[in-house]
Amino acid sequence: VDGEWRRRAREHLNNLAIPVGSLGRLLDIAEQLAAIKESLKPSVGKKVVVTMAGDHGVVEEGVSTCPREVTLQMVYNFVAGGAGINALAGAAGARVVVVDMGVAGDLKELVEQGKILSRKVDFGTRNMTRGPAMTRQQAVQALEAGIDIAGDLVREGAELLGTGDMGIGNTTPSSAVLAALSGLPVRQVTGRGTGIDDETLDRKVRVIERALAVNRPDPQDPVDVLAKVGGFEIGGIAGLILGAAYYRVPVVVDGFISTAGALLAKHIAPQCVDYMIAAHRSMEYGHRYMLEELGLQPLLDLNMRLGEGTGAALAMCIVEGAARVIREMLTFEEAGVARNKSREYAV
Amino acid sequence: VDGEWRRRAREHLNNLAIPVGSLGRLLDIAEQLAAIKESLKPSVGKKVVVTMAGDHGVVEEGVSTCPREVTLQMVYNFVAGGAGINALAGAAGARVVVVDMGVAGDLKELVEQGKILSRKVDFGTRNMTRGPAMTRQQAVQALEAGIDIAGDLVREGAELLGTGDMGIGNTTPSSAVLAALSGLPVRQVTGRGTGIDDETLDRKVRVIERALAVNRPDPQDPVDVLAKVGGFEIGGIAGLILGAAYYRVPVVVDGFISTAGALLAKHIAPQCVDYMIAAHRSMEYGHRYMLEELGLQPLLDLNMRLGEGTGAALAMCIVEGAARVIREMLTFEEAGVARNKSREYAV
Repeated sequence: VDGEWRRRAREHLNNLAIPVGSLGRLLDIAEQLAAIKESLKPSVGKKVVVTMAGDHGVVEEGVSTCPREVTLQMVYNFVAGGAGINALAGAAGARVVVVDMGVAGDLKELVEQGKILSRKVDFGTRNMTRGPAMTRQQAVQALEAGIDIAGDLVREGAELLGTGDMGIGNTTPSSAVLAALSGLPVRQVTGRGTGIDDETLDRKVRVIERALAVNRPDPQDPVDVLAKVGGFEIGGIAGLILGAAYYRVPVVVDGFISTAGALLAKHIAPQCVDYMIAAHRSMEYGHRYMLEELGLQPLLDLNMRLGEGTGAALAMCIVEGAARVIREMLTFEEAGVARNKSREYAV
Repeated sequence: VDGEWRRRAREHLNNLAIPVGSLGRLLDIAEQLAAIKESLKPSVGKKVVVTMAGDHGVVEEGVSTCPREVTLQMVYNFVAGGAGINALAGAAGARVVVVDMGVAGDLKELVEQGKILSRKVDFGTRNMTRGPAMTRQQAVQALEAGIDIAGDLVREGAELLGTGDMGIGNTTPSSAVLAALSGLPVRQVTGRGTGIDDETLDRKVRVIERALAVNRPDPQDPVDVLAKVGGFEIGGIAGLILGAAYYRVPVVVDGFISTAGALLAKHIAPQCVDYMIAAHRSMEYGHRYMLEELGLQPLLDLNMRLGEGTGAALAMCIVEGAARVIREMLTFEEAGVARNKSREYAV
């Protein structure tokens, strides 16, 4: 994004009738929004959370507490309005768009009723311990689907995008993507997902190690990493983020799975990080390493680990606040308030 | 609040179609809201932030970077809609009610126009280094004003209250209140307020120490502490919190000054802590000790230190999310989602 707009935004924010810097991180977000939108009056009123769903062949290795059918069942729950993302998007005034990126079940009915979008690449990925999760062509297809959806939403007026995921087993490929791109040890970046016990966690670590050994993803080639140890919804999320950057719209990145997508997006086009806002610190342990790799500090830390875009939706309220700070607040001169001699400080 | 409602709420939350506990602190807030409202469908849609304004005689000791007139000027800014609290209450869908608790200037015009409420106790407190900041009768008057305002707002339909403050110099009495009630050393609980330099910080510490030595507030008597080293807006905030508890409405407590009020409220009626939600961790250093004294963990940590109720307004979005989680989300049975074998865990 444009450094000159960042500078102009900060100058304006430093003239607001408050002690310098006293709105903390809201000012940083306000500056980022102004730079992205090239305006001192950035608007993020029209918000959309895109929840990408996909299934994972690796679930047959016993890495999750949930049966695979739950992915499909949860898509129905999203459509019924009864899931966490519905509740929290409601609080944020955001629309939820559900995308079938690769659910292992028939969702034609919901697609025909216009209740979800279909960009189905396949009926779930293949078991990555026995070969690539998907072909390179499928990986490109997943990325392109996300980019296209971002474009469609921006054309329809979306001013702020958020990412979300649904896919039983998808912390496993997310940890694999992180390990492949960062070189960090698998055990360090692997967590309990939906709540697995110690024995299952050990198995999950071994499964990821095997997948990496069998496939040898090339860390210099993010599309190869996505194809070999990723997932369809993870590729869709990466594409959505690339699209957000391309169409110059800020994107709030949800938790562990979404940030795996963000990491892939960064490796494809490093500049897209300027458009990302990290929503929250997930309880899923490896998330901290993803955020470090991206150089992002999350807005919230509420011990959440659900996914679906729930963290992104909550953080959208904070982003809305930041946009209003720069749009609506008056400067010392405008408000007729005496300037103080305060300075910015750190504790 | 009623332990039986807490238990019922938690049982319901544990049946939602998510891995147990995976919405983290939202579930704790949801449980608290259900217990306060004695309902599994608590509503916090009607939100009001009450911003209490007052001046402080101790400002003549040179403890702030701002001239005292700024309190009055900022009240006009609140009314014009150009302040931080206006922007952030807008993002949260909250109404802002501004109360003149003791501004050292004439606000009759705004009161007559119905733009602010007047509960003016006096035109600023007296300089607490030379005797009590106010009389005991004035302290009681300030507390009663806050209780009354809570009652009025609840009768008008408010479902969630938030506290806010405006008063040049008011970190000084807030630190004094904390030191008096906790026994902690003044230097440890005194910070940079609007952004004072090291020399002014040293002076501020000495001023507070002198005020405590001159007045000897009785830590067993919170009304005495308020009278001797408090402020009119701090008393009003304490009263608002007491009123929220009395009228059984949750109250989001803003930063350093509001939490000084919350500490007084707790010492007056310990049960009122059940109705408090700590909005954020202020950058003002002593805030952490106040939160410890109250046993509260803040929802947000965004390096903010403005006051006005800005942190409370932002946190109201999170509280709204928590209310919607318990109101709107479906259980495994209702959603037709297969139960998993997940368990709650801590990292």
